[in-house]
Amino acid sequence: MTQIYDRVALIGLGLIASSMAHAMRRSGLAGEIVGTARSGETRDTARELGFCDRVVDTAIEAVAGADLVVLAMPVGAMETVAREIGSHIANGATVTDVGSVKRAVVDAVAPHLPDHVDFIPGHPLAGTEHSGPRSGFAELFENRYCILLPGDGADPDAVDRLTRYWEAMGAIVETMDVDHHDLVLAVTSHTPHLIAYTMVGVADDLRRVTDSEVIKYSAGGFRDFTRIAASDPTMWRDVFLNNKEATLEILGRFTEELFALQRAIRTGDGDHLFDYFTHTRAIRRGIIEAGQDTDAPDFGRGGKKT
Amino acid sequence: MTQIYDRVALIGLGLIASSMAHAMRRSGLAGEIVGTARSGETRDTARELGFCDRVVDTAIEAVAGADLVVLAMPVGAMETVAREIGSHIANGATVTDVGSVKRAVVDAVAPHLPDHVDFIPGHPLAGTEHSGPRSGFAELFENRYCILLPGDGADPDAVDRLTRYWEAMGAIVETMDVDHHDLVLAVTSHTPHLIAYTMVGVADDLRRVTDSEVIKYSAGGFRDFTRIAASDPTMWRDVFLNNKEATLEILGRFTEELFALQRAIRTGDGDHLFDYFTHTRAIRRGIIEAGQDTDAPDFGRGGKKT
Repeated sequence: MTQIYDRVALIGLGLIASSMAHAMRRSGLAGEIVGTARSGETRDTARELGFCDRVVDTAIEAVAGADLVVLAMPVGAMETVAREIGSHIANGATVTDVGSVKRAVVDAVAPHLPDHVDFIPGHPLAGTEHSGPRSGFAELFENRYCILLPGDGADPDAVDRLTRYWEAMGAIVETMDVDHHDLVLAVTSHTPHLIAYTMVGVADDLRRVTDSEVIKYSAGGFRDFTRIAASDPTMWRDVFLNNKEATLEILGRFTEELFALQRAIRTGDGDHLFDYFTHTRAIRRGIIEAGQDTDAPDFGRGGKKT
Repeated sequence: MTQIYDRVALIGLGLIASSMAHAMRRSGLAGEIVGTARSGETRDTARELGFCDRVVDTAIEAVAGADLVVLAMPVGAMETVAREIGSHIANGATVTDVGSVKRAVVDAVAPHLPDHVDFIPGHPLAGTEHSGPRSGFAELFENRYCILLPGDGADPDAVDRLTRYWEAMGAIVETMDVDHHDLVLAVTSHTPHLIAYTMVGVADDLRRVTDSEVIKYSAGGFRDFTRIAASDPTMWRDVFLNNKEATLEILGRFTEELFALQRAIRTGDGDHLFDYFTHTRAIRRGIIEAGQDTDAPDFGRGGKKT
């Protein structure tokens, strides 16, 4: 595979950035990979694992001479970093990010970048329940969507190059409007995460149902919630603080529907429940047909033979 | 493996019963497997697939001469069937069921069974998103819990025999009190299912987020909900109608917690969110340590390499 960027600077070295490094290495996409992280421990781990060509101590050092700068830290830290590195980024470089919300990132980052830089926000829809530099692997982005949000003024060549870069890491690239992204993700990711965190919290609080029982009998559905609710707390705190409006809107819809089902249970309205549960099967079929999951028997584990 | 029952009658031939038939066949646990289902189409499918030695047209024919009778239909249909077969069950036979709620099953079934029969309610915690006679497979119960609820008057030999039968199909057998079962399952299974159904319903209703987008970008968490929400509508209607009290109690706790997190989002209380999300990670670790899931990288699919 051909090199796409001469020097890629990864700022933040968690699951996403370390996976990008592994994927770049595998396909020779970058002349040099330079990484940095705020935490000395993370930098030491990255040096030990060796997935970057160089690990440097500051973001300013990292961006020097890079033609691609990737902001891969929690959304809440992006403004500070953008302010720090803005005047140090090379002429004509592309800056992107991997944050799960986009309006807040655009508002936090764009004002600090000079005109000679192309800022193309991004969001790879990939993750696991693990976080940190040890959790990365080259296959993370394979057959997963990566949404780019170039905006109206973006340079088509820079967008094309970044698109080829993500595709070379295995992703399917789509573009989207910033605010629409935040609403779609509130439905498909942010609200489901909040709900999963809540359900796991409820289980943990119950005194009459011991922890060990909840864990033992988790295969009935609860286990899938715990997988979602094991994701990185800092990242998710920042998601909810930064996609407040859309999340609260979807949550409002959710509680409205939940109360209607709760009333159906209380009043014994079996037809309402049956019709609702039948209706939701169609969405599942769509997901399987779209290749975003399989319908192989899961052997009672909620997972899939792959 | 040795034969445990001479003749097993499966009443209802969906995912659970067909999987039991496959598992019995694999290990030679039954001298003869006789099956029946209310629907002629299901009986025809079962005859075509051949996982029973005989498929008969009525429950009364099925139980004749059986030393184990398994009620494997939706909970809402159990009283009618129990009333029908009660006087036709052989002396000394064991009757069990596989329903997801237990107090309602005991109340519906026990009054119709004669004294010479051992009624030992059961609940295998296993399932997939598929239903019907074509969805069964012999491995469904492997390393999954099966809860037996023998009650005080149960014959120890009959309980022991049913325990060995489930263990021979791969399950880990535990006993529990009927009402405690319904509360534990409301936490680990029933409420998570209701929440998943609700979230999928919300996504389906939204007009500004097209179906295709919800499906495309489902890997962010939503997909796990759709898997749960694709389960059999009849079965789940009956679960909620028959475990009303415990489900409504847990739902009340759930909405209370959800509103607290919603308020934290609205007021920007990042510490509250961070602490909550950190706390829930511990439960996930417990599940992995208990062997009820793995922590292998899921390659962004929410599933596991097995």
